Amino acid sequence: MSDILHRIGAMAFPEDVYATLTTTDGLARWWTADTKGDSDPGGVVAFRFGEAGGFDMKVLEARPSELVRWEVVDGPEEWIGTQIRFDLKREGEWTIILFRHEGWREQVEFMHHCSTKWATFLMSLKSLVETGQGQPAPYDVKVSNWH
Amino acid sequence: MSDILHRIGAMAFPEDVYATLTTTDGLARWWTADTKGDSDPGGVVAFRFGEAGGFDMKVLEARPSELVRWEVVDGPEEWIGTQIRFDLKREGEWTIILFRHEGWREQVEFMHHCSTKWATFLMSLKSLVETGQGQPAPYDVKVSNWH
Repeated sequence: MSDILHRIGAMAFPEDVYATLTTTDGLARWWTADTKGDSDPGGVVAFRFGEAGGFDMKVLEARPSELVRWEVVDGPEEWIGTQIRFDLKREGEWTIILFRHEGWREQVEFMHHCSTKWATFLMSLKSLVETGQGQPAPYDVKVSNWH
Repeated sequence: MSDILHRIGAMAFPEDVYATLTTTDGLARWWTADTKGDSDPGGVVAFRFGEAGGFDMKVLEARPSELVRWEVVDGPEEWIGTQIRFDLKREGEWTIILFRHEGWREQVEFMHHCSTKWATFLMSLKSLVETGQGQPAPYDVKVSNWH
């Protein structure tokens, strides 16, 4: 098993960062504009990226200003069954997000790609809570020929 | 053991990407402006980031337009003994870089941070070969309170 890890910090309150992770409106403003579903624990959120398809995430846990956990229940084969977690903590004026996309079965080329894309999307989240403006798909940063 | 993985693609020739990985001038234009040393196989390159310190990399292997491998011989304790590799390949008009920073002993918070920073530095490399302008330290993208 292998994991994608990231750490970003935003000059924002933990509750505001938490809101971007636990509401479809918040998620749509940094990850993909096409976000629908039930973002409460037990619900499933559908993230779509046009013709590229997308992911369905079951919300496993949501602890206000502390933790959000998802399980991938539909999407590319490599993603199904993997889990994503966002741990939040306060450090002075910063809210720190420790991000993990855990449980990849193999270190395939697609995993390398997803790691870089997660970094740019987390920078989009940082920008959203700091400036009000994120870069969700289809306005996301292109990192390669795979988008 | 745990690894940081990334994949970026640049609209550039493999030999130009390779040059940014195997010359101190090239490295200084996307990773850190303070880069000195011997970038030939067997040599050691010193990368410095002001008061934050830096890394000494021994060049293990350099295969033109294909592969560059380094071993960290000095720097933060967590980095020493880890290895970094850049695999290059051509896909149409793109040069793809598969990046690996391998052999982390533990998934510490610093590893999360370094993963995100590598993504932004690889985007700096992409920008350098596509536009002539990278964002090396001290002009690098700030991702958190840790820089």
